[in-house]
Amino acid sequence: MRVVYGIHPVEELLRAGGQGLTELWLAEGAKGPSLPGLEQQARRAGARVQRASRQKLDGLAEGGRHQGVVAVVSGEFRYAELQDILESARVAGEPPLLVVLDGVEDPHHLGAIARSAVALGAHGLVIPRDRAVGVTPVAMKASAGILARCPVVRVVNVSRFIEELKEAGVWSVALAADGDRDLSELDLKGPTALVLGSEGEGIRPLVRKTCDHSARVGMRPVVESLSVSAAAAISLYEAARQRGRRRG
Amino acid sequence: MRVVYGIHPVEELLRAGGQGLTELWLAEGAKGPSLPGLEQQARRAGARVQRASRQKLDGLAEGGRHQGVVAVVSGEFRYAELQDILESARVAGEPPLLVVLDGVEDPHHLGAIARSAVALGAHGLVIPRDRAVGVTPVAMKASAGILARCPVVRVVNVSRFIEELKEAGVWSVALAADGDRDLSELDLKGPTALVLGSEGEGIRPLVRKTCDHSARVGMRPVVESLSVSAAAAISLYEAARQRGRRRG
Repeated sequence: MRVVYGIHPVEELLRAGGQGLTELWLAEGAKGPSLPGLEQQARRAGARVQRASRQKLDGLAEGGRHQGVVAVVSGEFRYAELQDILESARVAGEPPLLVVLDGVEDPHHLGAIARSAVALGAHGLVIPRDRAVGVTPVAMKASAGILARCPVVRVVNVSRFIEELKEAGVWSVALAADGDRDLSELDLKGPTALVLGSEGEGIRPLVRKTCDHSARVGMRPVVESLSVSAAAAISLYEAARQRGRRRG
Repeated sequence: MRVVYGIHPVEELLRAGGQGLTELWLAEGAKGPSLPGLEQQARRAGARVQRASRQKLDGLAEGGRHQGVVAVVSGEFRYAELQDILESARVAGEPPLLVVLDGVEDPHHLGAIARSAVALGAHGLVIPRDRAVGVTPVAMKASAGILARCPVVRVVNVSRFIEELKEAGVWSVALAADGDRDLSELDLKGPTALVLGSEGEGIRPLVRKTCDHSARVGMRPVVESLSVSAAAAISLYEAARQRGRRRG
């Protein structure tokens, strides 16, 4: 069982089909233009809709900002496989574009990166199973619910996964403040995995060594480092920009 | 009086000279490689260094994640004037690059955008005085302390400010999901202000109409909208990329 809360995340859950939705809790007195629609869609998806006090919803959301809306979903978040990501790129007729997060621990960053990834046309995210945050309710909220329909693959060993990508014809680019080349000098139009590290530590040395390239963001000598969310948004944009230009 | 907390924000405060620093509070038992250095620098800046319980620091930081370090600074955050931003660009020998935030209410976004702005070479931020977040301790923390040395101008009327920019020779670009052109088609190498709106509402119509251009981020039909932090990072990167190319 897992919990999804907040208006946008619950809307996204329902837009994605509301799979596994068993209960929708609305706070007594909660108002908003989208609530009647949410209630109707939830009923249609077979969920039980209940009104309760804000305190009850606070408890369900474990203190998260639920905006008067909490959904209870059966089963855990369904992680994807690499094949799902490659298949979704194939169906879209696009060279695969992935984001690999090597050890991001903050669920806000995971959520923010998922949101940028979907908005800028990536086909999925990859995270390690250990020493990293998974798809938690906080991450879901931070993604404005987008994580509900972004394929996320969990892997045991990031370096080995990057080797697998190579075999599948996907090139990997490690984003690092001291990368070898400027990001915009690299060709990101082919099958590409953008690899980012955790806020404090960056990409682990072995993972970085396994990547085909390392690149830095921005032209100037970077004294300040970007947040991992900003670096992800920028590298996704650069890939989208190059790909758009090729199409155009 | 204002409070700055967290290791990075206090480091940044001291790196910027520690102006106005009167007290540095360290939690009893707090350890970390940077603490002795912080203590020494704070004494040198004329501050009183005190040890206290974590509870005392929790109270000073009003529940923020202080990591055992809280600085008390006399006076309010010193906002800058447009002239300061233009002067700092002149000194750097660069065409001014500004970020104007029309009504961003979340201090996390303000902090994140300040961090990206400084990392990517912008000369300052502009925020409205009303209906928007100012430089709060939460924003300072979210910027990893970078806000301590990023010029921030507060203006009464954003549209009128954009008119002033025009008179000073600075072009303004409104970033919007339905902008007229792709961001990468615009020339951002000259004096430029990037104008972004609040998360829910976007840029207000009058502000947008006052801007010289409107642009969207990304080549594909954007179904999902980016967060304001991601849009800011991307547009700052695009400006830096174009400027780097000109120099190179």
